[in-house]
Amino acid sequence: MTALWVIYLYMNELTINLKPKSKMPLYEQIYRYIKENIIAGKLPYKEKLPSTRQLSRYLEVSRSTVELAYEQLLSEGYIEAEPYRGYYVAQIEGLYHFSKERESDHTHPEKCEEKYKYDFSPNGVDLNSFPYNAWRKLSKEVLLDDKVELFRLGDPQGELSFRESICKYLYQARGVGCTPEQVVLGAGSDFLLMMLCAIIGRDRRFAVENPTYKQAYRLFESQSYPVVPIDMDRHGMKIDKLYESDADVAYVTPSHQYPTGVVMPIKRRLELLKWANDRDGRYIIEDDYDSEFRYKGKPIPALQGYDQSGRVIYLGTFSKSIAPAIRMSYMVLPEELVAVYRKKCGFISSTVSKVDQLIVQSFIENGYYDRHLNKTRALYRGRHDMLINGLRPLAGCCSISGENAGVHLLLTFENGMTEDEIVERAKNVRIRVYRMSDYVVGRKEWKATVLLGYANLTEEEIKEACGMLCEAWLS
Amino acid sequence: MTALWVIYLYMNELTINLKPKSKMPLYEQIYRYIKENIIAGKLPYKEKLPSTRQLSRYLEVSRSTVELAYEQLLSEGYIEAEPYRGYYVAQIEGLYHFSKERESDHTHPEKCEEKYKYDFSPNGVDLNSFPYNAWRKLSKEVLLDDKVELFRLGDPQGELSFRESICKYLYQARGVGCTPEQVVLGAGSDFLLMMLCAIIGRDRRFAVENPTYKQAYRLFESQSYPVVPIDMDRHGMKIDKLYESDADVAYVTPSHQYPTGVVMPIKRRLELLKWANDRDGRYIIEDDYDSEFRYKGKPIPALQGYDQSGRVIYLGTFSKSIAPAIRMSYMVLPEELVAVYRKKCGFISSTVSKVDQLIVQSFIENGYYDRHLNKTRALYRGRHDMLINGLRPLAGCCSISGENAGVHLLLTFENGMTEDEIVERAKNVRIRVYRMSDYVVGRKEWKATVLLGYANLTEEEIKEACGMLCEAWLS
Repeated sequence: MTALWVIYLYMNELTINLKPKSKMPLYEQIYRYIKENIIAGKLPYKEKLPSTRQLSRYLEVSRSTVELAYEQLLSEGYIEAEPYRGYYVAQIEGLYHFSKERESDHTHPEKCEEKYKYDFSPNGVDLNSFPYNAWRKLSKEVLLDDKVELFRLGDPQGELSFRESICKYLYQARGVGCTPEQVVLGAGSDFLLMMLCAIIGRDRRFAVENPTYKQAYRLFESQSYPVVPIDMDRHGMKIDKLYESDADVAYVTPSHQYPTGVVMPIKRRLELLKWANDRDGRYIIEDDYDSEFRYKGKPIPALQGYDQSGRVIYLGTFSKSIAPAIRMSYMVLPEELVAVYRKKCGFISSTVSKVDQLIVQSFIENGYYDRHLNKTRALYRGRHDMLINGLRPLAGCCSISGENAGVHLLLTFENGMTEDEIVERAKNVRIRVYRMSDYVVGRKEWKATVLLGYANLTEEEIKEACGMLCEAWLS
Repeated sequence: MTALWVIYLYMNELTINLKPKSKMPLYEQIYRYIKENIIAGKLPYKEKLPSTRQLSRYLEVSRSTVELAYEQLLSEGYIEAEPYRGYYVAQIEGLYHFSKERESDHTHPEKCEEKYKYDFSPNGVDLNSFPYNAWRKLSKEVLLDDKVELFRLGDPQGELSFRESICKYLYQARGVGCTPEQVVLGAGSDFLLMMLCAIIGRDRRFAVENPTYKQAYRLFESQSYPVVPIDMDRHGMKIDKLYESDADVAYVTPSHQYPTGVVMPIKRRLELLKWANDRDGRYIIEDDYDSEFRYKGKPIPALQGYDQSGRVIYLGTFSKSIAPAIRMSYMVLPEELVAVYRKKCGFISSTVSKVDQLIVQSFIENGYYDRHLNKTRALYRGRHDMLINGLRPLAGCCSISGENAGVHLLLTFENGMTEDEIVERAKNVRIRVYRMSDYVVGRKEWKATVLLGYANLTEEEIKEACGMLCEAWLS
């Protein structure tokens, strides 16, 4: 024991008060004691520490215990070892102290949910029809299979066999022609759009339909791109406005425009493809977010199927068609962009767990997906018909549009009521409907319109709600 | 039937050859027939179609079947309806044809795996010790619980209760002080770094240690940021070089530098914090990727714990500590950046499924995580000791470093062999070791060094491999 240390311990009326029965190991008690004294400035810079042999004798502990404590102090930089001379307190200027564990404020800044009786959310999904038992069964089966492989890091694009299933499904159901090499799986469309931005690179201008799917609009903005809203006519995005905008990338929802429900006819699709072909580096992002639900005829083939020059990036998702909490979307890249993806983003690990991929693959391959889609399609059709029927009394003052597909429709009022009034009157009878203005970017004139989603209400609920809405709006 | 149509059908020796027993509905057969003829140019622009009544009579099908076919053609834009006049073929110039389903080329462009007997990958994880039964049990329990809620879209930051568990764990295990409001969950660190870039915004310069974790380096590059590699000394990133670099954001791995294994001492940590405090808008990204594994003393507290001014963004992951296929990481944002996150990225849906969150939460809260960490720590320690022991014969010609933590160590050769030679000689005995050069950015001089990871080899394998390596390198 160096003299200074004896004096130090004496002066401070301190000893390292070791508690052999404590849950904390002895070495840690020593380490903490010395560290705290260094932090408190009681052991100053250049102070020599007792040797491990001295301290172990003094404390009556094994030498290796003290060595462990010193090693910890060394590795954290509180002390320094000088060969053949011993241990010294290191220079620690302006030492910061550990911040204390902050108390979580459980008053979250979330808005108080208004108490609505019926909510016509356009983003609803009926989860009561979800095939829980099948899902549980498949989860169990997947986890029984070759265990180690399942938890190893998988292919960055998603498992090959799963991508093959997706290709097959896309060709049959959507007329999308692609190879598994073109498919990249991701945890939600937001993530895939972020990755797409990295692939496409900086110095690009994005064009979006107006009104549009705000999630995508905000995503491009969050990635610091200029985003130009393009007006629509009854066939979708106006192509002349698109040319004028000088955009490089057009984000569109041709199968079922969100939120207007416009289905882009073949002529406009070809014009859009021509625009993309007119200049190098132009791309179309086709977000096919809810093409599974259509009430008249068969689903309309995807724009990607008409693309001969690799200009269309196709985006699909299982989050809408299976369940929102299933974070799984995919994009189909044109071959030119597959090469860029490999170079710029091929190193990024997959964002979807292998277990989840195998569950969904098995869900598709065993026919559960088709059955689930048929079931929800029938369910939504019933609700759709009930809603249109229930809104009949409004025929004089408003018109319905966008009703052929998806899970919402639009009501445009011709009687001079503003959107605020419409929403407010519905709110007074505790029914929530959604303003068109929430989907419009920038300044733009349009007729007062509200969105009514019907996926999350039963036919009985829709019937009652329609009665209440008609009364509220016609009075 | 219009005269033209009769002639058309006659001329082409065609009728719509309906197959009532086909799986394809009749309306679709009609729809396809007409569509194909429009695409083929056989039905030209402005051609009038027979009325639904005429065609239904001619084909001997119900009128509604023909109506359905026409509606489909209408909605896809192949035909147009003129009120009171009938249906006409629409103008479709420069029609693109569906691309055929391309055959997947199953010769993947992946490099042929060399046949190694032993692979000292620094990114290995022992999956044989993974608690499969516990995982299966927890998965099953989670799926039994309140079903509908589980499949609804969750909190963009991750479920609150899970974030609370993470805070508790981080405080106890890593000295990280934070509230659940500061935690954002994401499907892997790559994704979180992408999101972080969006939060931090453009016009920033990133600094990385050199050598570094290339995944992060490449990610910043993919997001089009300038990235400056900063030289290190034995305490980590050189702070004077950091000042010179004019960087705004420093990406560091202070608990266990990747790949050198340097543990940043407290003095350097405080200097780094001072750098961040010296100018507004500076941040430190602390990637605490493998702090769970340490063989001497207790884990070193995170840099975040010393940060009083909200300059440190802490990044942690379950992918390394549970299993690589579990795509789950988290970041702890300083409060200032929480506000920016909410504004710029708060709308981005969570990339981690609720089911997976609940499984991991339950894995932590029921003590499985601690047990798993203890088990793997003991396992890795045994392999670590065996490797150091097995490399003893090399004492004359090379030195070991970075061996106190993580799951790999470094061998630096002093005998004039180049990295290529070292790797080549190992390869000749079918053993794979990893070049330091793969972690170095740009031009930089260093001594020939290889990395040996030991997480994925048993003690027996390591023993045998060491014998072979010593022979290969000493001959």
